[in-house]
Amino acid sequence: MKARVYVTLKPTVLDPQGATIRTALAGMGYSDIADVRQGKYFDIRIENAADKAKVQEEIERIAHDVLANPVIEEYRVEILD
Amino acid sequence: MKARVYVTLKPTVLDPQGATIRTALAGMGYSDIADVRQGKYFDIRIENAADKAKVQEEIERIAHDVLANPVIEEYRVEILD
Repeated sequence: MKARVYVTLKPTVLDPQGATIRTALAGMGYSDIADVRQGKYFDIRIENAADKAKVQEEIERIAHDVLANPVIEEYRVEILD
Repeated sequence: MKARVYVTLKPTVLDPQGATIRTALAGMGYSDIADVRQGKYFDIRIENAADKAKVQEEIERIAHDVLANPVIEEYRVEILD
């Protein structure tokens, strides 16, 4: 089974990487780019997984405890099967 | 208009961050996690965009020139409207 976890900064948290890219693009003439925000994702392959609900629960726990910092980031889990 | 660009290492390129996470998870008892690969994505907001095909072309160019390193990374553009 495969899962994907998306991790992104909370909307209230400044994203300096995204802001830098936006500024660079404006300097290159892409003046129509209004905003850039960067996030990351994790493609996870799970072995011997039969129960989708159980996998979902496990990946949610991993996302919360390991992959994201819940103080400043939010995450979303997708089970791709 | 909004677009999302996914950037990930080519399958043939080693992903040390993903490997480290996998090892850490195994150490925490998640022995069913067979593989982890990390990627990044960019949420882009485009102003005054009417023509979807033109936006697609522009974002493809930005992805190729700025957001990804085509030597070791591959990218995928999604126009979210």
